[in-house]
Amino acid sequence: MHKQQLFENIIRKQSFLCLGLDTDIKKIPPHLLQEEDPVFAFNKAIIDATQIYCVACKPNLAFYESLGVKGQIALEKTVAYIRKNYPDLFIIADAKRGDIGNTSEMYARAIFEFADFDAVTVAPYMGEDSVKPFLAYPDKWVILLALTSNKGSQDFQFMADAKGERLFEKVLIKSRKWATDEQMMYVVGATQGKMFEEIRKIVPHHFLLVPGVGAQGGSLEEVARYGFNSQCGLLVNSSRQIIYADPTERFAEAARYEARKLQEEMSKYLEWIPNAK
Amino acid sequence: MHKQQLFENIIRKQSFLCLGLDTDIKKIPPHLLQEEDPVFAFNKAIIDATQIYCVACKPNLAFYESLGVKGQIALEKTVAYIRKNYPDLFIIADAKRGDIGNTSEMYARAIFEFADFDAVTVAPYMGEDSVKPFLAYPDKWVILLALTSNKGSQDFQFMADAKGERLFEKVLIKSRKWATDEQMMYVVGATQGKMFEEIRKIVPHHFLLVPGVGAQGGSLEEVARYGFNSQCGLLVNSSRQIIYADPTERFAEAARYEARKLQEEMSKYLEWIPNAK
Repeated sequence: MHKQQLFENIIRKQSFLCLGLDTDIKKIPPHLLQEEDPVFAFNKAIIDATQIYCVACKPNLAFYESLGVKGQIALEKTVAYIRKNYPDLFIIADAKRGDIGNTSEMYARAIFEFADFDAVTVAPYMGEDSVKPFLAYPDKWVILLALTSNKGSQDFQFMADAKGERLFEKVLIKSRKWATDEQMMYVVGATQGKMFEEIRKIVPHHFLLVPGVGAQGGSLEEVARYGFNSQCGLLVNSSRQIIYADPTERFAEAARYEARKLQEEMSKYLEWIPNAK
Repeated sequence: MHKQQLFENIIRKQSFLCLGLDTDIKKIPPHLLQEEDPVFAFNKAIIDATQIYCVACKPNLAFYESLGVKGQIALEKTVAYIRKNYPDLFIIADAKRGDIGNTSEMYARAIFEFADFDAVTVAPYMGEDSVKPFLAYPDKWVILLALTSNKGSQDFQFMADAKGERLFEKVLIKSRKWATDEQMMYVVGATQGKMFEEIRKIVPHHFLLVPGVGAQGGSLEEVARYGFNSQCGLLVNSSRQIIYADPTERFAEAARYEARKLQEEMSKYLEWIPNAK
C-alpha cells in the first residue's frame, strides 16, 4: 500500500487507528476455547466488529509464537482473512526483527512472501545491513524502532554523544538515508509526549507507528497535537483496551464500542489537518 | 544447563564449538527434498554427524520462519531430537527478540516453555524491561547482543557519549546488573578482533557467543587469544562452513570433517587455559 492510499483511507474512515492483535489464549472469552482454532475465531470476530473504525491492524507475532505450530496456523489464517475481506487494512507484523543480512533476508521472506504483511517492525541495533533486506520488497514497509513506549526506552535510547545527539536521533538521521518516507516508518511511543515535536524536526514527512495509548498510559490528544503532519502521519495502536474490553460472549460488541470511541476522538483531531475532513 | 556443566562439556569434548543450524531449504542437497520433512532430515543428519565435536547448537529461527508452519514443525522436531538424543548439547534459539514486557513474556514462553531451548539471543535496544521476562526462567539463559559481527555494527554500537563510553559498553555495564554470569551471556562478533580485550575488562567471567568465524571472516585464533577466560568463556559459532560443506549426498560426512577441523584447532587453543586439558 502506498502512503497516499493510506492517507486516503484515513480521511475516508476518519481514523488513524491501528488494531493491535495481541491475542493471548489465556485471556480470550472461555466459550471460544471450544472452537477448532480459538485464536483465529477470536481475531475474526474482533476484526469483523472493528474494521470500519481502523485503517491498520497489527498482529504481535510473540503471541502466536507462544502457541507453536497452532499459533503459526492462526496467524496465517488471520492475515489471509484480512487480506481477502478487508483489503484496505494495512497489515503490520509486529516482530521487532533484525539480524545480519542473510538472516534478515529470511525474516523478510517469512513476513512478506510466506505471509502477506504490508509492513514489519525492525530493531535498529545491528545497523543498516540488518534493515536493508526488508527494504528489497517494493510496496512493503519497514517500521524501525526509534523511541519506544516502555520504561526501558530510558536505558539506551536517550544516550547522547559529545554533541548532545541522542541514540534515537541517530537512528532517525542515519536510517532516513536508507529508504524514503514511502517505505520507512518509525515506532515512537505515545508515552514520549513532547518528544514528538523533536522527532518531527528530523522526520517531518514519515508516518509514525505509535503504541502506548491506553494500557501504557499515553495521551492520544498529545500524540496528535505534536505528531501530526500534513498527511496525518500517525498510526496509533490500541491493543488490550479494545480486544479485552469484555471477557464474555459480548467481547466483539465491546471491542467495537471501544474502537468506535477511539475513532470518534481521532475524527475530532483530524479537523486540525487541512484537507483531512 | 549451569555454567560449570558447560565448562565441563568443553573440557570433555575439547571443543567450544556451536553448530549453527541456519538451514535453508534452497541450499540443502536435492535428494533430501523427497523426504517428508527435508529440513528436519538435513538437521538430523548434520547433528548426528557433528555432535561429538560440538558443545552447543544454534537454530537460527529466521530460517524456519521463512517456511511458515512447516518450518515451525521442523524446528520443534529438531529441538526435541537434540534434547532426547544429545542432552549435553546446549541449545540456543537465535532469535534476536526484544519487546515491551508483556510481549517479551510471550517470546519467552515460546522459546522456553513451548520449545525447550536453553538460551535465547535478545536485542538490547528496548532496555531492561524488554530483557527481564526472559530471565524469569531458572536455568535458562539470555544472550544479549553487545557487539555484532556485521558491517552495520559500526552504525550505532560504537556511538560514544561525552566520556567516551560506547553504546556496546553501556549495554554490558547496565545489563550485567540485570542477571549474573550464570544466566547472561553476550554476543560478540569474531570480526571485532582486539575488542575482545576491552570487553573482557567489563565482563571477565561471562560466556560470549561468537558468530562470524568462517563465512564472515573472523579469526578463531584471535578470538581465543583475546576472548578466553579461566572457564573458556567462549562459544564460537560456525554455520555455513559446516552445514554447507558439500552439496551432495556426502553432506553429513563433509560437515563432520569441517566440525572436526574446528574442534582440533579449538583443542590446541584450550591448552592455553590451565585446567582445561
